[in-house]
Amino acid sequence: MSQPPRVAGRHFLQIPGPTNVPDRVLRAIDRPVIDHRGPEFGELGRTCLAGLQEIFQTREPVVIYPASGTGAWEAALVNTLSPGDTVLMARTGWFAVLWNDMARKLGLEPIFLDTDWRRGADPAGIGAILRDDRSHRIKAVCIVHNETSTGCVTHVDQVRRVMDECRHPALLMVDAISSLGAMEYRHDDWSVDVTICGSQKGLMMPPGLSFNAVSQKAMAANKTAKLPRNYWDWPAMLEMNATGYFPYTPGINLLFGLVEVVKLMREEGFDNIFARHARHAEATRRAVRAWGLETQCDEPLDHSAALTAVRVPEGHSADKLRRIILERFNMSLGTGLGQIQDRAFRIGHLGDFGDLQLMGTLSGVEMGLRVAGVPHRAGGAQAAMDYLAGNA
Amino acid sequence: MSQPPRVAGRHFLQIPGPTNVPDRVLRAIDRPVIDHRGPEFGELGRTCLAGLQEIFQTREPVVIYPASGTGAWEAALVNTLSPGDTVLMARTGWFAVLWNDMARKLGLEPIFLDTDWRRGADPAGIGAILRDDRSHRIKAVCIVHNETSTGCVTHVDQVRRVMDECRHPALLMVDAISSLGAMEYRHDDWSVDVTICGSQKGLMMPPGLSFNAVSQKAMAANKTAKLPRNYWDWPAMLEMNATGYFPYTPGINLLFGLVEVVKLMREEGFDNIFARHARHAEATRRAVRAWGLETQCDEPLDHSAALTAVRVPEGHSADKLRRIILERFNMSLGTGLGQIQDRAFRIGHLGDFGDLQLMGTLSGVEMGLRVAGVPHRAGGAQAAMDYLAGNA
Amino acid sequence: MSQPPRVAGRHFLQIPGPTNVPDRVLRAIDRPVIDHRGPEFGELGRTCLAGLQEIFQTREPVVIYPASGTGAWEAALVNTLSPGDTVLMARTGWFAVLWNDMARKLGLEPIFLDTDWRRGADPAGIGAILRDDRSHRIKAVCIVHNETSTGCVTHVDQVRRVMDECRHPALLMVDAISSLGAMEYRHDDWSVDVTICGSQKGLMMPPGLSFNAVSQKAMAANKTAKLPRNYWDWPAMLEMNATGYFPYTPGINLLFGLVEVVKLMREEGFDNIFARHARHAEATRRAVRAWGLETQCDEPLDHSAALTAVRVPEGHSADKLRRIILERFNMSLGTGLGQIQDRAFRIGHLGDFGDLQLMGTLSGVEMGLRVAGVPHRAGGAQAAMDYLAGNA
Amino acid sequence: MSQPPRVAGRHFLQIPGPTNVPDRVLRAIDRPVIDHRGPEFGELGRTCLAGLQEIFQTREPVVIYPASGTGAWEAALVNTLSPGDTVLMARTGWFAVLWNDMARKLGLEPIFLDTDWRRGADPAGIGAILRDDRSHRIKAVCIVHNETSTGCVTHVDQVRRVMDECRHPALLMVDAISSLGAMEYRHDDWSVDVTICGSQKGLMMPPGLSFNAVSQKAMAANKTAKLPRNYWDWPAMLEMNATGYFPYTPGINLLFGLVEVVKLMREEGFDNIFARHARHAEATRRAVRAWGLETQCDEPLDHSAALTAVRVPEGHSADKLRRIILERFNMSLGTGLGQIQDRAFRIGHLGDFGDLQLMGTLSGVEMGLRVAGVPHRAGGAQAAMDYLAGNA
Repeated sequence: MSQPPRVAGRHFLQIPGPTNVPDRVLRAIDRPVIDHRGPEFGELGRTCLAGLQEIFQTREPVVIYPASGTGAWEAALVNTLSPGDTVLMARTGWFAVLWNDMARKLGLEPIFLDTDWRRGADPAGIGAILRDDRSHRIKAVCIVHNETSTGCVTHVDQVRRVMDECRHPALLMVDAISSLGAMEYRHDDWSVDVTICGSQKGLMMPPGLSFNAVSQKAMAANKTAKLPRNYWDWPAMLEMNATGYFPYTPGINLLFGLVEVVKLMREEGFDNIFARHARHAEATRRAVRAWGLETQCDEPLDHSAALTAVRVPEGHSADKLRRIILERFNMSLGTGLGQIQDRAFRIGHLGDFGDLQLMGTLSGVEMGLRVAGVPHRAGGAQAAMDYLAGNA
Repeated sequence: MSQPPRVAGRHFLQIPGPTNVPDRVLRAIDRPVIDHRGPEFGELGRTCLAGLQEIFQTREPVVIYPASGTGAWEAALVNTLSPGDTVLMARTGWFAVLWNDMARKLGLEPIFLDTDWRRGADPAGIGAILRDDRSHRIKAVCIVHNETSTGCVTHVDQVRRVMDECRHPALLMVDAISSLGAMEYRHDDWSVDVTICGSQKGLMMPPGLSFNAVSQKAMAANKTAKLPRNYWDWPAMLEMNATGYFPYTPGINLLFGLVEVVKLMREEGFDNIFARHARHAEATRRAVRAWGLETQCDEPLDHSAALTAVRVPEGHSADKLRRIILERFNMSLGTGLGQIQDRAFRIGHLGDFGDLQLMGTLSGVEMGLRVAGVPHRAGGAQAAMDYLAGNA
Repeated sequence: MSQPPRVAGRHFLQIPGPTNVPDRVLRAIDRPVIDHRGPEFGELGRTCLAGLQEIFQTREPVVIYPASGTGAWEAALVNTLSPGDTVLMARTGWFAVLWNDMARKLGLEPIFLDTDWRRGADPAGIGAILRDDRSHRIKAVCIVHNETSTGCVTHVDQVRRVMDECRHPALLMVDAISSLGAMEYRHDDWSVDVTICGSQKGLMMPPGLSFNAVSQKAMAANKTAKLPRNYWDWPAMLEMNATGYFPYTPGINLLFGLVEVVKLMREEGFDNIFARHARHAEATRRAVRAWGLETQCDEPLDHSAALTAVRVPEGHSADKLRRIILERFNMSLGTGLGQIQDRAFRIGHLGDFGDLQLMGTLSGVEMGLRVAGVPHRAGGAQAAMDYLAGNA
Repeated sequence: MSQPPRVAGRHFLQIPGPTNVPDRVLRAIDRPVIDHRGPEFGELGRTCLAGLQEIFQTREPVVIYPASGTGAWEAALVNTLSPGDTVLMARTGWFAVLWNDMARKLGLEPIFLDTDWRRGADPAGIGAILRDDRSHRIKAVCIVHNETSTGCVTHVDQVRRVMDECRHPALLMVDAISSLGAMEYRHDDWSVDVTICGSQKGLMMPPGLSFNAVSQKAMAANKTAKLPRNYWDWPAMLEMNATGYFPYTPGINLLFGLVEVVKLMREEGFDNIFARHARHAEATRRAVRAWGLETQCDEPLDHSAALTAVRVPEGHSADKLRRIILERFNMSLGTGLGQIQDRAFRIGHLGDFGDLQLMGTLSGVEMGLRVAGVPHRAGGAQAAMDYLAGNA
């Protein structure tokens, strides 16, 4: 009955997605719906599809689903594979586990290459398996570019290289859900066959749209793939997309937002966007180090620019810390998922984000550590500030 | 390069969905995203799920997908059926055709009961087929409550009655995409097993959410249904929904809108909502009659309260008329679909809509008929006005 | 306690101001405030000031007040006049009366030329008085261009001509509050000294900004004018405006809206805007005539393009009619003011407005006349439609 | 031509007003205008007027102007005074100077009690002057409660006490523009005669509304006050306000926002609001001290809870520092005004503001000091954090 008193000021949404949506995007979404079969919509559709190609760095088509990222995962699989097909996946974290679960539910047979969740997938390990697969039983290699549960990156270009080296014909499918728009990504240059993404991370939108960038090789696989599909079916999409339309009602208002996102990204510049995320990630890691804590990622080359997962010392609860930070400092952090539940928390520093928001975020973590009684040294926020001011 | 001059004033979006979204709903959607795993979201989720039960008139769970209505069609089928299952459908119009296509693509075997697209499905015809199906090969009867392409209603309660009379165990699945929120609908009282709906019609929201209301019998069928599924899978949804959460990222901002929709509907009152749609439909039919034109629906008992499809005289183009109305009068009308392409246009009078908007709409049609040179008598808007003023 | 049920659909705000604000303008206003002393604001200020010059058709400065139109009236007087000064005004309607009251309260001595409120001010009558004023006691001629209470226009160019003919040095001050943006207006070509306007009529914004366009002659008068002033003081404004800033906190968010208004007006084109208002006014008068009612304005050359005041027959109440129309048809019309209270109602057809909104409006009036039992002939909306379709 | 690249993330608007406007308030403002003479408006008006009484802690009427705070200053003077009247003012900072200028422009004769701009006005000094004024030539004592240019508070209750002690009949007028909503304020308990406020500071709205809370004694003075007035005239306002309406077009959309502000303030609770501002001010002063800098206010009992003005060391430019902070860290700070131009900058910590926003703000200042080469010690943000975490 009696509500707790209002907490003043802006909520800090520092989970690794959904991320902070710029006001311009929210306002763009906030306009009357239009006829998705009329001429104004066609122009909207064409603008969105072209803008996505720029973001995915591709000349191939990008399919837009009115769906979450999970749907785009499913779309990648059902459009290219048949029941019983083998796929190679890497167990780099919780989202890799979920994708693997999905593959099994859909009747595929995944090989699941393990990691300790503290690094990206090992290209050499992938290469070894592919080389052994003389009969080309493996139809697809499925990689999570930026594992959102751990903050560890798998280097897509390196995976591509080992696939090329052993001339394996498998499709390369990449989940770029939490990397696209935050870290460099090159669908064409890396010869990715299907890139999967969603709207609510680096693309700075609310959730509700997801994407498949599709190579010609993947389109060819679609012709013989036998998994049943309708909602996710590429050919029906591409046929209508040719003129800017969609086979069923699209997420019209989110597309209004997407137009604005494309403008915002061009206004900032893609190189600037990636440099900003890298700089914020470095500042965050310096804070973590100064606190005397560990990042979940312990392979220096695999650190994510989009988020940082931080481990709490044994005997302390990451979820209690998160709850205290939420209640006292009005900030949401990401929970530890799967095998690191309650052992780590995640700081999202992607999307529409600036230096002072990062300093508010790191200050909130530092104050939370103190209030929660988690052993640490003060000075993490100060270390981040030293770095940011020196690189302003 | 040179844009045409701006057209002043409010666009009239009179297609039968997406419909006019109230400003309060758009403004509710226009707020910062929140953590879909945090406590504030749980309360949001529970409010939405409970509100939908009220709208669907059910105590059974209602599943919310971040997807278009087409997705909810697919969800109904893949959750309850197995490859090769027979389903009974009625070819009442274009959307029935699309649903039937989907069923075939997913590996089902539909029986497709025909109509002339000028009436709803015939309950007696359905009863005859079911009675013949002694072996209960038919696993589901799939009905479009309000065929959006024709404006013809199939009477769900009558279909239920014939199913009960012949004690056929098939599931009853109903597409209520363009009826829910505009016409009375009773999921529980009519013992519907799966009701399918979307956000962008009577529920007065942008597209992007869709729904399955699910009976216990349908849940039981889910246990043995063999069509592969993950995104659409009910049990995973219901498990998380129990506390107000979702298994993957939900359409958070549209859920903000849904909370407002539930409030708006309660503020108007469901009986008032249905009476208003019926009144506007009657006024529209009087206008059509006064123009000397025919409605697509020619069965008096099957007229839709949500939209009216109007046939143009032989030798005239409905699409040319629509284009003229769009260009001269800034109004979007629905196109004729499938076998009535260019032969009919559709007037949506559902969603958030009032008498004067209807009069603007009908005046726009009447002026369009005149400008386009479509033979008609003047006085249709006047006839509608006479009715509305007499029933104000 | 118990609220009446919600009325669905869009409210028709057909008072002659505030008018319908385009969504793009509302959304522009809906953004975080910025520092009114920072560089971003300077650019905003300069854009607004330049845009207003285009709208007022002037190369002279336009002063922006964070105030209603009433404030801009006061500003015109206190910036140019001294206690006891004589001004010539014309009693063309209620707003002229209010301006006259204000002049007296401020210590001025207005001469008040009468009319019957059914036409604009008579330039010849003004000329006669000015010619008699050999001693140039009259310091200003104050004219309401479009009298919002009656829908009668005073022809500013003709007033200018008689002033020129008798070489009278009085300042010419014009209230263009409800004409600017709806009817042609030429501050420079007509040699107006102070043009007064507000944001909430033809400029399609919420109320809260008002304007003075100021000639060099008016600026010269300011130097010797002795009425005390601070908030309204022009020189302090112009000094800061030179770089885009203001001497005290401006109405920042409404200025965001003004930038959008300037864009919208350019996109439509000023000639198109004026033609649209004239066309809607003609359609409205045809409806009134067909109903067998009288417009308040009975001088054909003085009809307003922005609004139409309609007289109800003796023995009937215009306010009761308005109340019925509000309750049954969700439309606000303007009340009769002053000597025509309850004798007339006013239809605003200015601002962001299209043909179908006009048809909804006129239909609402016609239905209201019927429900209220006001004697009239049916067919007014039909007559408007005939005209609009013939001139589409 | 070529724009600089977009700066990502949220702008920090940390000037001492306009302040951060909650999204709920912006969204409330973003709705279609309504008829300011219709029944819906009457309810809106009454809600606003009652809400303001709660905020001003008064049972007396509060007048709302569609105007900036400067207008409400003018309103207080012209409603109560006559040309040549003597008023007692205290030169506590730039805004006191501006108010004094205004009084002179309006024909009043202010006595101007000086300070060094580093403390509030001295009640004893005011008492001494009043005691000397045996003839009661002084008609009003005009006090700035929270001098926005210096961050120094004048204690209104103490001023009231000295006025009572010497039984001086002068009116007490208080500028609470930057204190109301941030610091405790009691119009009735302190027997203030006119309290002046604006919308854009502690009331968390865009600029454009301003207020006069008016005692019965002030209303009595109005009857004989001879300064000319119309726009600002109280009796016309109060007469219409009795039923919730206004004599001329009010700032309708800002009133929509005001309704939301009243709700937000109640939801947080006034005591919580004041405690939050006090806590943030203390944290800010600790940061300043740790940097080795001085606050402009050097009287411990007079520190403002709404803003902190910080002096830069001799030989350094506060405005250069502000420019660097704006360009590198996307934060607006307040400039030094008048005699402390370029010698001090101001940090606003009022309005809708939370701990992490404050930490972002103080971090931005600390990084700016470093980048700009202003001598200081690191550790200010850390000191604030230590305080906030200890008092979370």
